[in-house]
Amino acid sequence: MAENTKVKDDRDNTVYIGKKPTMNYVLAVATQFNSGTDEVVIKARGKSISTAVDVAEIVRNRFVQGVKVKNIKITTEQLKGEDERISNVSSIEIFLVK
Amino acid sequence: MAENTKVKDDRDNTVYIGKKPTMNYVLAVATQFNSGTDEVVIKARGKSISTAVDVAEIVRNRFVQGVKVKNIKITTEQLKGEDERISNVSSIEIFLVK
Repeated sequence: MAENTKVKDDRDNTVYIGKKPTMNYVLAVATQFNSGTDEVVIKARGKSISTAVDVAEIVRNRFVQGVKVKNIKITTEQLKGEDERISNVSSIEIFLVK
Repeated sequence: MAENTKVKDDRDNTVYIGKKPTMNYVLAVATQFNSGTDEVVIKARGKSISTAVDVAEIVRNRFVQGVKVKNIKITTEQLKGEDERISNVSSIEIFLVK
């Protein structure tokens, strides 16, 4: 009972896409929805952006009923590399709702 | 004068992202805007999706003043491979407006 009143960290429902197999992230998103979350955010940068879109599409078409894309945002982030030079990298946030 | 009354093919304003260098596509989009188009659609499939986001971000941040992302759509397309098997591939459409 007390769990329902817990203040939620808004990062709770975010899945960050990295270099693991796509299905790992699909399962992470599906698990969030199946545990009762009604919005999951998929975030990725650079080359992982295409994997993020794959994850959203696979969840929506094959894993969780009634999931829709609510919004998609793209931005540019500045990262400092090992040589202290700043490089720009594109990022995406895909907001899925059930 | 007659050109203004010409019915526009709606593919006129679409830039398809492939395997060429990113800046080729940036220039294609910038050229569309600079020739008076007020909406350009960037389309990509599979691994090229991250390049599509790069193109949109570079155009917006460095090449054309006042360009905004109007909408982003993601879908799954079914492609028939050489062996006649059907495979699913994610795709993205990024709608830029000036």
